Amino acid sequence: MLEDVIQYLEKHTNQALETVKQLVRIPSVAAKGEGIEETATLLKSMFEELGMKTQLHPTSGSPVVTASLDVGAKRTLLFYDHYDVQPAEPFDLWDSPPFEPEIRNGRLYGRGTADNKGDTTSRIWTIRAFQETDTPLPVNIKFVVEGEEEIGSIHLSEFVEPNKHFLKADGGIWEFGGAAIDGIQEAWLGLKGDFYVQLEVERLNRDVHSSTATHLPSAPFRLIWALNSLKDEKERILIPGWYDDITPLTKADWQHLDKVDMLEEDTKKYYGVDSYVLNLTGDKLKEVYYNGPTCCISGLTSGWQGKGSKTVLPAKASAKVDFRIVEDMDPEDLLKKLRAHLDNQGFSDVKITWHEAYPAAKTSPDHPFIQLVNTANKKIFGHDLRVHITSPGSGPLYLFKDHVPMVSIGVSDYDSRGHAPNESIKIDNFRNGMKRIAIIIDEMSRW
Amino acid sequence: MLEDVIQYLEKHTNQALETVKQLVRIPSVAAKGEGIEETATLLKSMFEELGMKTQLHPTSGSPVVTASLDVGAKRTLLFYDHYDVQPAEPFDLWDSPPFEPEIRNGRLYGRGTADNKGDTTSRIWTIRAFQETDTPLPVNIKFVVEGEEEIGSIHLSEFVEPNKHFLKADGGIWEFGGAAIDGIQEAWLGLKGDFYVQLEVERLNRDVHSSTATHLPSAPFRLIWALNSLKDEKERILIPGWYDDITPLTKADWQHLDKVDMLEEDTKKYYGVDSYVLNLTGDKLKEVYYNGPTCCISGLTSGWQGKGSKTVLPAKASAKVDFRIVEDMDPEDLLKKLRAHLDNQGFSDVKITWHEAYPAAKTSPDHPFIQLVNTANKKIFGHDLRVHITSPGSGPLYLFKDHVPMVSIGVSDYDSRGHAPNESIKIDNFRNGMKRIAIIIDEMSRW
Repeated sequence: MLEDVIQYLEKHTNQALETVKQLVRIPSVAAKGEGIEETATLLKSMFEELGMKTQLHPTSGSPVVTASLDVGAKRTLLFYDHYDVQPAEPFDLWDSPPFEPEIRNGRLYGRGTADNKGDTTSRIWTIRAFQETDTPLPVNIKFVVEGEEEIGSIHLSEFVEPNKHFLKADGGIWEFGGAAIDGIQEAWLGLKGDFYVQLEVERLNRDVHSSTATHLPSAPFRLIWALNSLKDEKERILIPGWYDDITPLTKADWQHLDKVDMLEEDTKKYYGVDSYVLNLTGDKLKEVYYNGPTCCISGLTSGWQGKGSKTVLPAKASAKVDFRIVEDMDPEDLLKKLRAHLDNQGFSDVKITWHEAYPAAKTSPDHPFIQLVNTANKKIFGHDLRVHITSPGSGPLYLFKDHVPMVSIGVSDYDSRGHAPNESIKIDNFRNGMKRIAIIIDEMSRW
Repeated sequence: MLEDVIQYLEKHTNQALETVKQLVRIPSVAAKGEGIEETATLLKSMFEELGMKTQLHPTSGSPVVTASLDVGAKRTLLFYDHYDVQPAEPFDLWDSPPFEPEIRNGRLYGRGTADNKGDTTSRIWTIRAFQETDTPLPVNIKFVVEGEEEIGSIHLSEFVEPNKHFLKADGGIWEFGGAAIDGIQEAWLGLKGDFYVQLEVERLNRDVHSSTATHLPSAPFRLIWALNSLKDEKERILIPGWYDDITPLTKADWQHLDKVDMLEEDTKKYYGVDSYVLNLTGDKLKEVYYNGPTCCISGLTSGWQGKGSKTVLPAKASAKVDFRIVEDMDPEDLLKKLRAHLDNQGFSDVKITWHEAYPAAKTSPDHPFIQLVNTANKKIFGHDLRVHITSPGSGPLYLFKDHVPMVSIGVSDYDSRGHAPNESIKIDNFRNGMKRIAIIIDEMSRW
């Protein structure tokens, strides 16, 4: 009975957290190619313990783990997760080592707890709860767990292309989500795309004494000037045609957005800022948050970075630039526009290396599955989901959108610090997140 | 007899190189505060072995080592050297470890061999040669060896102020010099000043997920925009008033410069460039080389610098900016101008930390001591010195210029790679450099 499932999850939260810890202890950093096979194999064995049919799908990069349990039900629920994590650097800003998970203050700390090993585990344990309480699973279950989400899901299409049938389902739960700063559970119906490049300049055959800067070319200054040409102080991306394909938010979008409280003051305080860029607020803030592309420098490197001074003219300089993109922007086209812009500005010496790139995608807020998830949420958390038409974050939703209506909910919260030091999840959210999945499964059986 | 001194130096070159090695083995990196006391003490003991009166002068930073030998002669020769070295990073670009000196291809490799432990040693061994061959030293000798040249001699004035009498001499040999790319020995009569700052921006209380770049401020972009405001693509420094105090080269300067061959093609090939910035050549090149200030980015740091992608909006960004300055530019005034410029451009959030700063200085090419050094050079190398009215490099010559006419000559060459990986000196230059000092001493006795 569903009641038994819920009670089982209440009682076994600590054991479930042990599974999160087990996964977090393997530093599966896709950017470094570390711990990937080991984590994929561990996950596969976890799914096998549930009696699921599993497979490791090799790709040119990390393998994709799939698991399915066909109980002959009318409806099928699909989970999308990823077993890779972001690099944990800078290590010295962590209060406990990132790959040695630790519980304190009602939270579990460690790289990947929030993004997204905690979510994956919550879903696995919910299935287990049905089985351990002899409650018949009333829906078929599928898992797709990839190992390159944090590097742009660069090889996921190699799995998807020949396995489209596997993605077919009545509803899908995406990897992330949780409680906002005011405690309200949030759901995300779309994901922005990403276009992440490295820009590199090399102008000398080696670092030289900086006295030669009178006449030798400067790689870091070339990079500065090139980056300066990408975005101005008014936050306008200056690459010709960059905004051409963006569709403005519709009246229907605004009807949903009008219900969203951006919690501006709390959020500013949380990040330690007095104001947002350009003093964005209200609808203007919503517009860029939900439908604005970004041009963000995620890294800068050149020359001497140690203490004090080194009088050197560096041979090389490079930047990592993360462009978030919205629906209808095409990465291939954007790459051409970026190259043409740099060339036209005289920066043919700036080399572009493409790290990740995929388009944005959305599920309609009017889909009945979204209503069903909201009902389940209300039963556990006592309130309606705060539904966002899209997340400002990115993910390869575009590969799934034609096969299954997807909604992203999860066990994180506003203070989970994904991609940053001291990543964590609140244990209460983890427990209730498992219970919410159980209710969604139950609701689907009557759909 | 002088002939015995020369022969002794010929025969003992290898032993002298052992002394260089002994000094290079201590990584006396002032920027990191490493190996400083140890090297100062070792040098002091080397001078004591020559029977010199020595002293370690404490400063707020590295101690200054002085040594003097008063033989009651009419003339006094002063040497300025430094026992600190530049950081050796990036270590992986060294063919042999920087602090494990190694001889190959007729050269001695190691951090500090050229800048300037080889020079210091060549001067010590020349004094030793007079003593070992019972040749009476015909001039009084003084050494000033500081330990912070590579970080802008930031505390040298603490020694100089109460010890101005010690700097009084008839001629002085500065720390560096050697053979140009065509084998001609070069002498430098002046040094540019330096104004080296760190620019730092911090806009968030921690690194955050880059999806927030729609509305949260970007420290690296603030830094890019600020750096872009410092210098344009035409190499003009844009800080108002920056060029105000520069005195153009005089007719007398040009008479000296006309004799200098810049070896443009060989030098371009050496650095792996097809052309200099702005296609500088001929007199235009000489103008910036001898009398141009620079604005050089020596380092850039922000966010993710590892392999692949990390989708982060970094909280902080910083740059090391090395401004070389020419005669009559005043660092205190320049700091005010830089601060005012950043403020006026809206970059009050860019913090300036001052790492090193001192003015430029020159000795007149017409001073008889310069002629004497040229005569000595001709006797050893068979050609006139290529005299540069100033070096494009920097040093605290301004503290000495009122007390002693200084000329910089040394045992390096065009391929010595000061401040860069695989620093080295050619053993032939080291041997002949010692012999040239012996001849200078002899010439001074008849001056």
